[in-house]
Amino acid sequence: MSLGEKTSGELNFMNFAVIGYGGQGAWHCDRILNSDVATLSGTYDIREARNEAARAKGIHVYDSLEALLQDTAVDAVVVATPNDSHNALVISALRRGKHVICEKPVDLTVAGFDAMVATAKEMGKVFTVHQNRRWDVDYLAMKGIVESGEIGDLIDIESRIHGSRGIPSDWRCEKAPGGGMILDWGVHLIDQILQIVKDPIVRVVCDTTYITGQEVDDGFFLTLHFASGKRAHIEVATYNFLPMPRFYLRCQSGSALIEDWRKHAQVARLTAWQEKDVTPVQNAAGITRTMAPRDELTLDCYEAPRPTVDVHDFYRNFCAVCGGKGELIVKPAEVRRVLLVMEAAFRSAECHSAVACSI
Amino acid sequence: MSLGEKTSGELNFMNFAVIGYGGQGAWHCDRILNSDVATLSGTYDIREARNEAARAKGIHVYDSLEALLQDTAVDAVVVATPNDSHNALVISALRRGKHVICEKPVDLTVAGFDAMVATAKEMGKVFTVHQNRRWDVDYLAMKGIVESGEIGDLIDIESRIHGSRGIPSDWRCEKAPGGGMILDWGVHLIDQILQIVKDPIVRVVCDTTYITGQEVDDGFFLTLHFASGKRAHIEVATYNFLPMPRFYLRCQSGSALIEDWRKHAQVARLTAWQEKDVTPVQNAAGITRTMAPRDELTLDCYEAPRPTVDVHDFYRNFCAVCGGKGELIVKPAEVRRVLLVMEAAFRSAECHSAVACSI
Repeated sequence: MSLGEKTSGELNFMNFAVIGYGGQGAWHCDRILNSDVATLSGTYDIREARNEAARAKGIHVYDSLEALLQDTAVDAVVVATPNDSHNALVISALRRGKHVICEKPVDLTVAGFDAMVATAKEMGKVFTVHQNRRWDVDYLAMKGIVESGEIGDLIDIESRIHGSRGIPSDWRCEKAPGGGMILDWGVHLIDQILQIVKDPIVRVVCDTTYITGQEVDDGFFLTLHFASGKRAHIEVATYNFLPMPRFYLRCQSGSALIEDWRKHAQVARLTAWQEKDVTPVQNAAGITRTMAPRDELTLDCYEAPRPTVDVHDFYRNFCAVCGGKGELIVKPAEVRRVLLVMEAAFRSAECHSAVACSI
Repeated sequence: MSLGEKTSGELNFMNFAVIGYGGQGAWHCDRILNSDVATLSGTYDIREARNEAARAKGIHVYDSLEALLQDTAVDAVVVATPNDSHNALVISALRRGKHVICEKPVDLTVAGFDAMVATAKEMGKVFTVHQNRRWDVDYLAMKGIVESGEIGDLIDIESRIHGSRGIPSDWRCEKAPGGGMILDWGVHLIDQILQIVKDPIVRVVCDTTYITGQEVDDGFFLTLHFASGKRAHIEVATYNFLPMPRFYLRCQSGSALIEDWRKHAQVARLTAWQEKDVTPVQNAAGITRTMAPRDELTLDCYEAPRPTVDVHDFYRNFCAVCGGKGELIVKPAEVRRVLLVMEAAFRSAECHSAVACSI
């Protein structure tokens, strides 16, 4: 969808201001400037250098946070600041009568998030979280394969992201502002998994790593056990100089794998379980029948089509809901579940044990 | 090492009989027939069809188990029968004054294994287990990289084997004879890991799968936590139609990966941690600096040499030790540790929780 020019016809047309002009704030400003439903009033950052960077792009910079919030021309506010400042800013903006989009992770605690949701309800305003990785093509390819049923019901799923730069050196390496990889990338990968597997979670097991710093986790390996028996492995690593595959899917009638987010999903669909003759193979220093490769006649191997996505749909959906149409793509109840999983993951990592839950 | 002809010169020359002529028994007979230290007296299987198969290969078949054990020309016996029959056969053979090699897993319980070891000691005979996958080239490549220190100290290691044929349909799909993948392939992969990581194990977490049958596990995901903080993930799967990489190694100064046992290990060695400028990259529907690829100038990427192995070294070592020279490659104390890990893995899978231990 690309309307070419901004229109208030079918779409609800809204005016935004962005609090924080770091990496994410700049991303929002760029998208809003190119949106068919949104216009940008301006931004404000507590760091003057970032305000200068915004001005250099021709973006209006408010004199203060207060000036931004007081601007009656602003319909909606995007909060893109360090994680520990989200709560106060979201609640302030809602109380000024603004609709609000908050960056992820929305809050460091479930209780903090509940207060935001309660304020939005009280003020009659729309509030959502920028879970932008709902638009990741690799995730959508996996979700599409599960939903199509083309390789049967899901058994388990693995989602990994392997980087090699360690924990970032900005506020994200500090505990107080909400740094660490569970909060930074975990929030995305958990959210994606919960969109693919809708069943209740009954057990969470998580290990964290502290290879490049001691204050916050620089990676984790998380297992979610669902009431249905399904399982998800979620791994984020920042000290891996060779990456493992991004996604792996095991289903009742086949498997799927995505090597890298730039690649197509490979699918192997089982067409017949039994094979006539299985010849044991020499595998390194032993013979094996169990691990012998399958006859090609019993597998249909292909590449899944790569979904096309438009990240502007996030703003289109938000503006539509603010105008009373439809429902949010990123629902507060979904965001809350992700926070509950992260809380359980922290508990599991701390006590070195499985955490029973009902999420 | 290939001496061309059998000699009792430097090597201790011995005469073997093999109990059981299934897949493993036939493997032993073939190796012994081609050994430079061993000769084969014959074999015996309780299934007449298997005895026929041995005869067809020109192998002498004893009239009974008793006849095999009574043959004073036999110095050593190989036990290659279903797992639940190992104990009685190993102890019988030791009591007849034979040295004994037993197939893996040597026993279903640690207590059973201890009785075998005690009998060997009492009889003054040599007893070992055929952990043939100590000679796997993929495992040896990983072990070599860790031991060389070329990419620094180990942080964690992953070992996977993914097949697609489900649980085997013979006795290995039944609980009583000791079927299931923890006992079948787990015993190899755990043994390999404990040869690479020598630290005490303090915690074991294991999940099992029952996709192709309910009686025994047809796969598992096992995590070993070592007292040193190191970690190992071990996975065996029999319902994966696309395989994940065989080995992954994360070390303090690099990573290594083996895609498949037939392939060379890929190594990425870190040459400098800091990079001048890191440009955030667009990764699917978001930007990331943390997960941006590394500058090639800070990584040295290469293929590790593929070790050369000779499985006959297993018999050479055994015969040498029977002759009073050297020590066993596969030591009873090492075998016992693997059994302890498997017991902890079963407990963890059963109670859905981490099992604290001191192994």
